[in-house]
Amino acid sequence: MNITRGSGRLMLFAGDKKMENLNIDFYGPGISPDDNDPEHLFRIASRAEIGCFATQMGLIARYGEDYPHINYLAKLNSKTNLVKTAQAEPVSSAFYSVAQVDEFRECSGLGIPAVGYTIYAGSEYEAQMLHEAAQMIYAAHQRGIISVVWIYPRGAAVKDERDPHLIAGAAGLGCALGADFVKINYPTNHADPKQAFKEAVQAAGRCKVLCAGGSSVDARLFLERLWEQLFVSGAGGNATGRNIHQKPLKEAIQMCNAISAIVVSGVNVNEALSIYSGRKEFKLKRNNVG
Amino acid sequence: MNITRGSGRLMLFAGDKKMENLNIDFYGPGISPDDNDPEHLFRIASRAEIGCFATQMGLIARYGEDYPHINYLAKLNSKTNLVKTAQAEPVSSAFYSVAQVDEFRECSGLGIPAVGYTIYAGSEYEAQMLHEAAQMIYAAHQRGIISVVWIYPRGAAVKDERDPHLIAGAAGLGCALGADFVKINYPTNHADPKQAFKEAVQAAGRCKVLCAGGSSVDARLFLERLWEQLFVSGAGGNATGRNIHQKPLKEAIQMCNAISAIVVSGVNVNEALSIYSGRKEFKLKRNNVG
Amino acid sequence: MNITRGSGRLMLFAGDKKMENLNIDFYGPGISPDDNDPEHLFRIASRAEIGCFATQMGLIARYGEDYPHINYLAKLNSKTNLVKTAQAEPVSSAFYSVAQVDEFRECSGLGIPAVGYTIYAGSEYEAQMLHEAAQMIYAAHQRGIISVVWIYPRGAAVKDERDPHLIAGAAGLGCALGADFVKINYPTNHADPKQAFKEAVQAAGRCKVLCAGGSSVDARLFLERLWEQLFVSGAGGNATGRNIHQKPLKEAIQMCNAISAIVVSGVNVNEALSIYSGRKEFKLKRNNVG
Amino acid sequence: MNITRGSGRLMLFAGDKKMENLNIDFYGPGISPDDNDPEHLFRIASRAEIGCFATQMGLIARYGEDYPHINYLAKLNSKTNLVKTAQAEPVSSAFYSVAQVDEFRECSGLGIPAVGYTIYAGSEYEAQMLHEAAQMIYAAHQRGIISVVWIYPRGAAVKDERDPHLIAGAAGLGCALGADFVKINYPTNHADPKQAFKEAVQAAGRCKVLCAGGSSVDARLFLERLWEQLFVSGAGGNATGRNIHQKPLKEAIQMCNAISAIVVSGVNVNEALSIYSGRKEFKLKRNNVG
Amino acid sequence: MNITRGSGRLMLFAGDKKMENLNIDFYGPGISPDDNDPEHLFRIASRAEIGCFATQMGLIARYGEDYPHINYLAKLNSKTNLVKTAQAEPVSSAFYSVAQVDEFRECSGLGIPAVGYTIYAGSEYEAQMLHEAAQMIYAAHQRGIISVVWIYPRGAAVKDERDPHLIAGAAGLGCALGADFVKINYPTNHADPKQAFKEAVQAAGRCKVLCAGGSSVDARLFLERLWEQLFVSGAGGNATGRNIHQKPLKEAIQMCNAISAIVVSGVNVNEALSIYSGRKEFKLKRNNVG
Repeated sequence: MNITRGSGRLMLFAGDKKMENLNIDFYGPGISPDDNDPEHLFRIASRAEIGCFATQMGLIARYGEDYPHINYLAKLNSKTNLVKTAQAEPVSSAFYSVAQVDEFRECSGLGIPAVGYTIYAGSEYEAQMLHEAAQMIYAAHQRGIISVVWIYPRGAAVKDERDPHLIAGAAGLGCALGADFVKINYPTNHADPKQAFKEAVQAAGRCKVLCAGGSSVDARLFLERLWEQLFVSGAGGNATGRNIHQKPLKEAIQMCNAISAIVVSGVNVNEALSIYSGRKEFKLKRNNVG
Repeated sequence: MNITRGSGRLMLFAGDKKMENLNIDFYGPGISPDDNDPEHLFRIASRAEIGCFATQMGLIARYGEDYPHINYLAKLNSKTNLVKTAQAEPVSSAFYSVAQVDEFRECSGLGIPAVGYTIYAGSEYEAQMLHEAAQMIYAAHQRGIISVVWIYPRGAAVKDERDPHLIAGAAGLGCALGADFVKINYPTNHADPKQAFKEAVQAAGRCKVLCAGGSSVDARLFLERLWEQLFVSGAGGNATGRNIHQKPLKEAIQMCNAISAIVVSGVNVNEALSIYSGRKEFKLKRNNVG
Repeated sequence: MNITRGSGRLMLFAGDKKMENLNIDFYGPGISPDDNDPEHLFRIASRAEIGCFATQMGLIARYGEDYPHINYLAKLNSKTNLVKTAQAEPVSSAFYSVAQVDEFRECSGLGIPAVGYTIYAGSEYEAQMLHEAAQMIYAAHQRGIISVVWIYPRGAAVKDERDPHLIAGAAGLGCALGADFVKINYPTNHADPKQAFKEAVQAAGRCKVLCAGGSSVDARLFLERLWEQLFVSGAGGNATGRNIHQKPLKEAIQMCNAISAIVVSGVNVNEALSIYSGRKEFKLKRNNVG
Repeated sequence: MNITRGSGRLMLFAGDKKMENLNIDFYGPGISPDDNDPEHLFRIASRAEIGCFATQMGLIARYGEDYPHINYLAKLNSKTNLVKTAQAEPVSSAFYSVAQVDEFRECSGLGIPAVGYTIYAGSEYEAQMLHEAAQMIYAAHQRGIISVVWIYPRGAAVKDERDPHLIAGAAGLGCALGADFVKINYPTNHADPKQAFKEAVQAAGRCKVLCAGGSSVDARLFLERLWEQLFVSGAGGNATGRNIHQKPLKEAIQMCNAISAIVVSGVNVNEALSIYSGRKEFKLKRNNVG
Repeated sequence: MNITRGSGRLMLFAGDKKMENLNIDFYGPGISPDDNDPEHLFRIASRAEIGCFATQMGLIARYGEDYPHINYLAKLNSKTNLVKTAQAEPVSSAFYSVAQVDEFRECSGLGIPAVGYTIYAGSEYEAQMLHEAAQMIYAAHQRGIISVVWIYPRGAAVKDERDPHLIAGAAGLGCALGADFVKINYPTNHADPKQAFKEAVQAAGRCKVLCAGGSSVDARLFLERLWEQLFVSGAGGNATGRNIHQKPLKEAIQMCNAISAIVVSGVNVNEALSIYSGRKEFKLKRNNVG
């Protein structure tokens, strides 16, 4: 798979939050003014070393023509953050079928090697989301498209979303659905999360686990935790959004590259920090992007 | 796009309220008796300078034959104002598919260069409306039809519909859906709304923002605010209904022209007022309407 | 349109209440024993002068073969009167598509120039009914079939179903859907209903308004009100059921003819009463029934 | 119609209760041990004189090969008795389309001249069931298949399921749907039910009324009531289950034959009792079974 | 049927709990560490003597290529254990159609002779699940695929899930749906469950009953109960998961073989225990696997 550059590990740049969190992640104190322009995401994705850039088809359709060399992941469903779990059980429906993604891919000539879908396991609408995810994965595999599922246990039935055993269950669920990658939360409710996280990685079997580095703003802490997730716990990649795009363009690109250096090339944290600070260049070996 | 006459800005005449507000906007004190006849809308749209006239397909089908030169926007969904948010979460479903609009367009020979859909973000039925909107936009783009989404945060989860940050989120949502234009409310809950509104315009990126001038009855105030929205905040056009069609025919046409003069030709408020008062003529350069 | 005999006004004989009101309208004190046999409706419709006979497809399928010269209106949805608004929001779904009506029409050779659908505006299921009605109208027009919508504001959100302004809104809604005729209730909650009713007729524009003569049993009062609806308020026809079919066959036929004489031929109330009492014959000029 | 043997009256053997009542009707005190084997139903249906045997397609598929000469009625929907009306409004969905029944009929070579569906009128899910029933009847008639609807008023809105006027409404509803037969309950809440039942028979018009003989265990009482339903009230047949299949095979067959003798041949109760007791043989004239 | 090796009895190895119970059944005290790797299930299924291995299509798609000789049962629906019955009525939807299973089967070349579906009878969503199950069975039989339904009475309406009479009803329901096998719970709420269980086996008729051996950890007790279910009560096979896969690989294989020896070859409990302990080899006669 060219999106992992042969490493088997995926650096996923998450840019789907304009729907999920509305403008909270893009404008306000501590966020670079660059980030309020949706094109910021494309500028980063096109200049940095990433595996794929996950975002909604609407954005790909609007900006893709000017950024034709990005490997896109079309995120098929999203919901806003307005309705909280205390009000109603979480649910999110696919906007498009994989067949439509494929049709768009052909018409536009863009590279969309992957699709994604979010499941709220434990929601009373779980059955609907499991169905849509299973159909997405089935249709993706028929077409040689990579499938990624975001699985978050959520709803009145879920007391602790960060419980390691529950997160491992979510990871196993991703495997049982046949996804290529499953994005789960990091089990922060545990004395030694990096050990606890191994349960999830193992439970996912051949389905690779993506994890966020957490919301830590400190770059060293963030990269250290990422390194541990990958090389202690055995994660198959990362999915990072805010820690990248809330930075000004140049710094965002350098953060992307620092992450990729760890994820794809396996460098240590100090080397990654040099890349982040701009003291060192980073370039992945290019494969043919199909 | 000929509906913007090359200006990139859209003067949208909104005539979809016979469903949305039943007869409240069309009959009663302060409303011209002309307005109770649905044909009033067509008389205005056909004689005034507008970008497009947004209304339901049913009205287009019934009157379009006699008004073949209007650029129509087929509004695909609408709901009545009867069920209030306090009673039930807002929801509105598409009446027709874009394929049906297209089929009608071909049969009737009418110009319907645009389609529209309203989303109540934050409603518990949000998933259904996001799906339908995404499908409308996808199908519209396949056929070279302009797509406009009206996005109003509404429902038990929405405490303040006029919050600037939330409105900016709605604008960004329109962009993430891939719409050409997003109609949002003006962030009146802010000390300096025209500055606050810039957040939304920027968050929408390449999706252009349409805004109502507000419910102000005073023409100068109305046109001043419109001018500010466009040339201070950077809006991509307007969507105006009641401030036009509640007036007698001649005055309604002059108001349309005054608005168009600002939106499309960028004239100042005084010049627009001259047009509104009939002291000055206004004519847009005609492009070929396809 | 042959169903209006060139008058532009429609005499609709409503025979859909076997579903809507179960046996309440057909059996009991003050109702002719004739009325408990469903064939009574067909006997009336076939011998009297009517514009069209509105009933369910099931009845048309069962009796139509023996009554091939009636102009039928296939009522596509109906609900029973069992679940009251206080218990649950009103909803009624289409039993058949227009394509199926058309297919049946072709197979049976029967004349079904019109279809109908009831919408409960203000119900929480309004979106579903607006969608189905819009689809019915779209499909009917594609096939040259007349469309009639019954629009009744109903549900927890509707405080006064007979409010003139609300009824005018319902009339305008029918127009916005593109229906040929809209059946609404008479605004009895008004000092001068026949003046008040004009708001509705005007709001409906080119969509013609049908109205019931009310539940008055007195023939003169009933016909007077009908005359006023048509020639004072400007209604486009009537929809009458119980005031016809609850009478014995001969009297029912004479009532039909009296109504038609007013609606289609525009006779005055005294002349209509002569027809009703049998002192005078009434025959419409026959057009070719297609 | 061969299922009525030219009498116009239908002897329907109801064998759909394995879903409707689970094992309550098939195992326990007062029930023959024979009845716990599903094949018991087929043994009866194949050896007794019946019009048709109504049961689920699943059973027909499993046993039909060994009982190829039965006239089957495929019951398209069923629900279990677990969820009571006090807990939730009753609803039952079609398992198969008529097209699938037809396809199965062709593949299996079995005789399935009829289909059936249960409607709970007055349930909040009534709209869904009316739609499915109407579609079943439409599709059945296209294919020359007899349609039977079971209509039971039920739900929070129904205070008295045995009210004669309400039952007559259900009968009329069956007619308005276009069904060939409507199975309704007997109006036991009336001083003279056999007179009261006439209202229903008449209200059903050309749709024939089927009625259960009631739950009476005494054979004479059961057969007397059946005779009255048919020849006093004018019913078009019977639908009997438990009073047949809870008996041992031989007695069950004799009960079937006694019922058929009344329904199809119109014998009196004494003669039917002779058949039931085995003192007399009963054989219907065989028509060609198509 | 080759999955019963001609015995008419099915040894079903249940491996669908990664969705149903998340990671609870796969990781924790008393569970072999082997079990946290999803491949453990495939290792067992490929080396042990089993009738079929029931699991989700996603797992089959991911691992099947390396385990091409297993007879798979594609479990079409599953739900997580997060939402408890006290919170919401149980519901589970099919992820795939049988047509998709068939298509996958053809593309992959894997042996998938069976499909399965779980129904929660007595849930308020029962109608939806009965519909999906009936459709699965219909489509499976068209293609010569074996159908298995898991039927568990569950929901607010079900007071005692282990009531023998209710379980017999579930068994009969499986038969009425036309399934080949029905998996039900063992009626532990009875003084003599193995006698009580006969009611269910008989009620299922030609639909064969599968039963779990129970959660007993003691091998002798487990195998004794299994033997009784089969040879006292007349069950048509077993469905066993945790009692197999929670053991280390070698022991799991031996347990599988011990179960198969009882189910398929009908050995006694002592002989089965010898196989489980490894003192004796067990090999089924191989048929051609199609």
